[in-house]
Amino acid sequence: MLTKVRYSVKDMTLWTRWETSGFIAYSFLAVFLYEELELTFLAVPWTPIALVGTAVAFILGFQNSAAYGRIWEARKVWGGIVNTSRTWGMKTKDMVTNEYATEPETEAELKEQKRILVYRHIAWLTTLRYAMRQRKKWETFDNHFTNREWSNAIHIPEKVLPIEEALFPYLSPEELRYTMDKNNKSTTLLYLQSNHLRELKEKGLIWEFSFLELENLLQEFLTFQGQSERIKNFPYPRQYATLSYIFVMIFIILLPFGIVPEFSKIATSLTDNFPRISEVFTWLAIPFCTIVSWVFHTMQRIGV
Amino acid sequence: MLTKVRYSVKDMTLWTRWETSGFIAYSFLAVFLYEELELTFLAVPWTPIALVGTAVAFILGFQNSAAYGRIWEARKVWGGIVNTSRTWGMKTKDMVTNEYATEPETEAELKEQKRILVYRHIAWLTTLRYAMRQRKKWETFDNHFTNREWSNAIHIPEKVLPIEEALFPYLSPEELRYTMDKNNKSTTLLYLQSNHLRELKEKGLIWEFSFLELENLLQEFLTFQGQSERIKNFPYPRQYATLSYIFVMIFIILLPFGIVPEFSKIATSLTDNFPRISEVFTWLAIPFCTIVSWVFHTMQRIGV
Amino acid sequence: MLTKVRYSVKDMTLWTRWETSGFIAYSFLAVFLYEELELTFLAVPWTPIALVGTAVAFILGFQNSAAYGRIWEARKVWGGIVNTSRTWGMKTKDMVTNEYATEPETEAELKEQKRILVYRHIAWLTTLRYAMRQRKKWETFDNHFTNREWSNAIHIPEKVLPIEEALFPYLSPEELRYTMDKNNKSTTLLYLQSNHLRELKEKGLIWEFSFLELENLLQEFLTFQGQSERIKNFPYPRQYATLSYIFVMIFIILLPFGIVPEFSKIATSLTDNFPRISEVFTWLAIPFCTIVSWVFHTMQRIGV
Amino acid sequence: MLTKVRYSVKDMTLWTRWETSGFIAYSFLAVFLYEELELTFLAVPWTPIALVGTAVAFILGFQNSAAYGRIWEARKVWGGIVNTSRTWGMKTKDMVTNEYATEPETEAELKEQKRILVYRHIAWLTTLRYAMRQRKKWETFDNHFTNREWSNAIHIPEKVLPIEEALFPYLSPEELRYTMDKNNKSTTLLYLQSNHLRELKEKGLIWEFSFLELENLLQEFLTFQGQSERIKNFPYPRQYATLSYIFVMIFIILLPFGIVPEFSKIATSLTDNFPRISEVFTWLAIPFCTIVSWVFHTMQRIGV
Amino acid sequence: MLTKVRYSVKDMTLWTRWETSGFIAYSFLAVFLYEELELTFLAVPWTPIALVGTAVAFILGFQNSAAYGRIWEARKVWGGIVNTSRTWGMKTKDMVTNEYATEPETEAELKEQKRILVYRHIAWLTTLRYAMRQRKKWETFDNHFTNREWSNAIHIPEKVLPIEEALFPYLSPEELRYTMDKNNKSTTLLYLQSNHLRELKEKGLIWEFSFLELENLLQEFLTFQGQSERIKNFPYPRQYATLSYIFVMIFIILLPFGIVPEFSKIATSLTDNFPRISEVFTWLAIPFCTIVSWVFHTMQRIGV
Repeated sequence: MLTKVRYSVKDMTLWTRWETSGFIAYSFLAVFLYEELELTFLAVPWTPIALVGTAVAFILGFQNSAAYGRIWEARKVWGGIVNTSRTWGMKTKDMVTNEYATEPETEAELKEQKRILVYRHIAWLTTLRYAMRQRKKWETFDNHFTNREWSNAIHIPEKVLPIEEALFPYLSPEELRYTMDKNNKSTTLLYLQSNHLRELKEKGLIWEFSFLELENLLQEFLTFQGQSERIKNFPYPRQYATLSYIFVMIFIILLPFGIVPEFSKIATSLTDNFPRISEVFTWLAIPFCTIVSWVFHTMQRIGV
Repeated sequence: MLTKVRYSVKDMTLWTRWETSGFIAYSFLAVFLYEELELTFLAVPWTPIALVGTAVAFILGFQNSAAYGRIWEARKVWGGIVNTSRTWGMKTKDMVTNEYATEPETEAELKEQKRILVYRHIAWLTTLRYAMRQRKKWETFDNHFTNREWSNAIHIPEKVLPIEEALFPYLSPEELRYTMDKNNKSTTLLYLQSNHLRELKEKGLIWEFSFLELENLLQEFLTFQGQSERIKNFPYPRQYATLSYIFVMIFIILLPFGIVPEFSKIATSLTDNFPRISEVFTWLAIPFCTIVSWVFHTMQRIGV
Repeated sequence: MLTKVRYSVKDMTLWTRWETSGFIAYSFLAVFLYEELELTFLAVPWTPIALVGTAVAFILGFQNSAAYGRIWEARKVWGGIVNTSRTWGMKTKDMVTNEYATEPETEAELKEQKRILVYRHIAWLTTLRYAMRQRKKWETFDNHFTNREWSNAIHIPEKVLPIEEALFPYLSPEELRYTMDKNNKSTTLLYLQSNHLRELKEKGLIWEFSFLELENLLQEFLTFQGQSERIKNFPYPRQYATLSYIFVMIFIILLPFGIVPEFSKIATSLTDNFPRISEVFTWLAIPFCTIVSWVFHTMQRIGV
Repeated sequence: MLTKVRYSVKDMTLWTRWETSGFIAYSFLAVFLYEELELTFLAVPWTPIALVGTAVAFILGFQNSAAYGRIWEARKVWGGIVNTSRTWGMKTKDMVTNEYATEPETEAELKEQKRILVYRHIAWLTTLRYAMRQRKKWETFDNHFTNREWSNAIHIPEKVLPIEEALFPYLSPEELRYTMDKNNKSTTLLYLQSNHLRELKEKGLIWEFSFLELENLLQEFLTFQGQSERIKNFPYPRQYATLSYIFVMIFIILLPFGIVPEFSKIATSLTDNFPRISEVFTWLAIPFCTIVSWVFHTMQRIGV
Repeated sequence: MLTKVRYSVKDMTLWTRWETSGFIAYSFLAVFLYEELELTFLAVPWTPIALVGTAVAFILGFQNSAAYGRIWEARKVWGGIVNTSRTWGMKTKDMVTNEYATEPETEAELKEQKRILVYRHIAWLTTLRYAMRQRKKWETFDNHFTNREWSNAIHIPEKVLPIEEALFPYLSPEELRYTMDKNNKSTTLLYLQSNHLRELKEKGLIWEFSFLELENLLQEFLTFQGQSERIKNFPYPRQYATLSYIFVMIFIILLPFGIVPEFSKIATSLTDNFPRISEVFTWLAIPFCTIVSWVFHTMQRIGV
């Protein structure tokens, strides 16, 4: 979803090559029927088509705006995870101390406790990353042949390495086993963090009020996790997506029957000066229809 | 409101079959009067109709945008309930302890207290779910025949199981009776939670400052509950909905009188080459009008 | 502002009957001059009018969008007052206790203190409600004859019962007198709450940290009150409202001179087949102009 | 920026009288060249102009939407200052007490301390108000002759009374002198507040935790101050403003060459029936062009 | 990105001189082919082009709206940094005291500690500023010749002074060396701040609860830093940018073939009255095409 390279025109062409072929074939058919078989009754007045086109452009505009809003929100959530993770590092570093301890620990032992807290946090990040990569049934991205092609071209680590191995360096063997048994691994790890904090507090290694602060950081992580899941699980409302798809298809289906007659009219007006060009001029409707169809279809495809 | 399957074209057709029939009948009538009875004065200049169409498309665009905003906000509230519920689980688990107790309780007793807090929370979720399913008088969803059909097809547990039975496993008999007597059951349950927390605090099972944190979680639940009620109780402002409905109907009523003459013109131009097709060509205005009416009407229906 | 019933077409017609009559009269005049007095020079090219119409539709779209945003925000503020009021009930109930008191009070006395806190809160809600109903000089709602009619039809308690009587059941006689003397009654009541909390804290009936929490709730009420006042006192910027009104009037004034000639053209084309209808056809421009004017004018009126 | 009276049509006319005169002169010129000197080649096809007009209407719509957003945000900030100022009053009133004091002060002394805190707050409000009135170099408001006229008509106290006199009643002589020496007077005053709170805390007149709460209120004031400065200092991005200005000018320059020929066509068609009117009809393009230019130009001017 | 001067028309012209030349050349070519070589078959019906134009205007509108949103958000983040920096100054000033110290420090020593905290904060601001100036590979700004020219004209200190020298006055030699070794210098400095606060707290120079408040300020700085990085690192989604670029290019490529024939028609109609002007009239399509292309292209370029 978040790609960073600039797409070249070539990429765009490749990515949309199937639809483009379809549009060419369809407008070829329309011109062929109208021009060669002279079925000139295959005509639709242009102005109502333009009205439908304007209405569809509106809808696609709003849809793209909503899609952009979703991407932007997703980016904010991940940005928030980064910020709060850094805060986690900073606060555990300076809030796990011997200051209030009844039986002070050695420096090494304190360091070990901090290491566990940070590594378990990395484990949480890992489980969250894997959860975000799971396929949902309405994610039609991979169904589309060219999308599948695309995602094969880029390397996705979550599809290669099993989650257990990815978590191995960051959790103790017992915690790893315990986590793997659970359904929602991310929530489990945050509960383990909370439990650990509580033990440290009871030993006096964390001051009671620092404990409250750190618990609130865990609450923030739960919130970010829930937001990620929400954006993942709640697609653009299906009724809108379906409808805008149908509208675009209706527009594309009507288009050639409105455009071909217009080109035909120009062709007729050319008969005197350019008899040979006049014969083939109507065929120029093919690239023209293809371009307009492509613009609308790509706008729709990108916005879902 | 939150459906997750992709609608097929067939679903769409079924769902809108009554309007579609109406549009077909209406445009049939228009063509019949114009073509068969030759009442060719039933014509309206097209360009002002196009202007009305553009204006209506604007309004529908904004309306859909607002409707999407409402769905998205609803989804955020429910997401927030999920996150804070997990936090409730985490914090009650690690904040109900013997650490500050004057007379420590047994481990089993502590566990029981935690169980009650969590089960009562589930009861709150249940009452909230039931409250959200109650019908409001402006929810015209069920009035529409095809919508009723649709909602019969999907199983809604809240319409089958009485709320008392749904709450039974999660509350003690006294609390269940007490809650059932109250009007706003959700608020009642949160007040019971608060009361319980206070008792635990007075026994020293919850540290005084943890008590403040947990009370603030209850405040968050009250906020989420109020937000759910607000979204439920405050529909899209009626004056807008009525107006956009009237605008769409005006547009649909005018449409055939603008489109039929345009088709008729093309028909006339075909008389020489295709005498037979020319006779029936104007009837093609029927599918065309139907499609345009359907696009605008469905946009309006989906946006309310 | 927040009406909940669905407006029927009849309501709409009644509500807008004066403008509608004006539009009918105006377009009648235009047709009369053009058709009967044959002042056919009263014509304006249609396409620039269409451009003005599109621009105006755009402006009205944004204006309605902003108006909807304001209503929605107002609804959020009132929803927030509901949520925080419930929290106030919950927290005063469980935070006013004998636990930290130096000289414990009787249960009845504690209950009385809680009652005063809650009743004074109801008094605050009442003063806020009355403040929201006061007329501001830019609220032109009542100036419009049909709006006044409408607001007479619905019963508004704030216009019937004086505020002093409305507050009587909720305040002690001294506090009532003290409040009535003040200009901003709502702020006064919250200051009284704060003062009361402080006394309870000094007696030890509220724990010092609970006092901070409750003070913060009062701060939230001050915020909600200020937000209500802001939405009440800051209308949709006047320059926008004036401008969109002028734009709509320009469009409506130009409209008949663009539409009547178009109908006249069709009328001319009907002379051969329907000589009698041809004579009266141009008069059909009257309902058509009226409808388009009505659509734009109502959009403008509803959006302010 | 925040005016509350409804502009009359007369105000609007006065405010825009220079542009309006310009538009009249310009379209007069266009008609004169076309009609009197018969330079009928001064014609531009209308449809591309309409496209430019639509595009410009879009841009102006978005620009006005952004401008409205800025006004609304400014209003929120000032509303927030009001709310938090009331909270400041409430909290200083009930948090400066003898309760935790080692050496209790007299009631009069306590009252004096509270008075100083509130008066210094009023001084802060004053400095902020003056800072908001300072002119920035991109504020072209006063450059425009009619705007200057307008602002002379309304009385602005900040331009009459020097800031030193305005602050005099609210600060002690030393603090006044200290503040006047500083560049950012508002920040200075909040630092003085913080210092004062600290002294009160050290004497025990403010409980340590109340001190934290009050410091956080000061932080809120710093935030509101910064937001005011941001809105003041960060105008609508200049590149957008420049561009939309250029677009509108292009549209206005092209307009008469598209409209005059259209009127001329109608004039020609009137030659038979109304020979005298036909001669002057084209001159009607002048008011028409003026109105359309005025609509677009005023939209642009109001949105910046 | 945040420029404050008003662009003059001259600046605009210079900045876009390359595209403008291209548009002139391209439309010259189109007119030349059509008019001189009389290849009059190089014509495309205008109305579908207008539809594409409207759709493109809509997309550009949304894109500019999103771009404005990003600039506005960036401005908010920097405004937030200013506000919180002032708070940092205020709170360190009044929270680093001898009040809770076990072994009080001299006034000079306290002042030195505060100085270090404030200077290290300035160092953090510096590293953040440098990080924001680093080039990213999708920032095509400098690739564009005229943009590079522009940025050479304004002096950017971050490109002249190495970061080490910029930090030198604000950090001790050891901290400077330590920071320069790290990858994310800003995070490192905030960790150092946290560590310093902790030491001060352990010496009792900061009260334990003030320590929590100050740590939360550091958390805010981490958040602002992360937000800056997010806005810097997450460009406007590339697929949108690419698509809107392609759409605009398609529109610009089609444009002359729609406009030239329209001018040619007018030219023909002028043959009788102005034979000489008629010959050259079609060439007027060049400035016209150039202007329309320029409007759309500049809208696109400014919005990315």
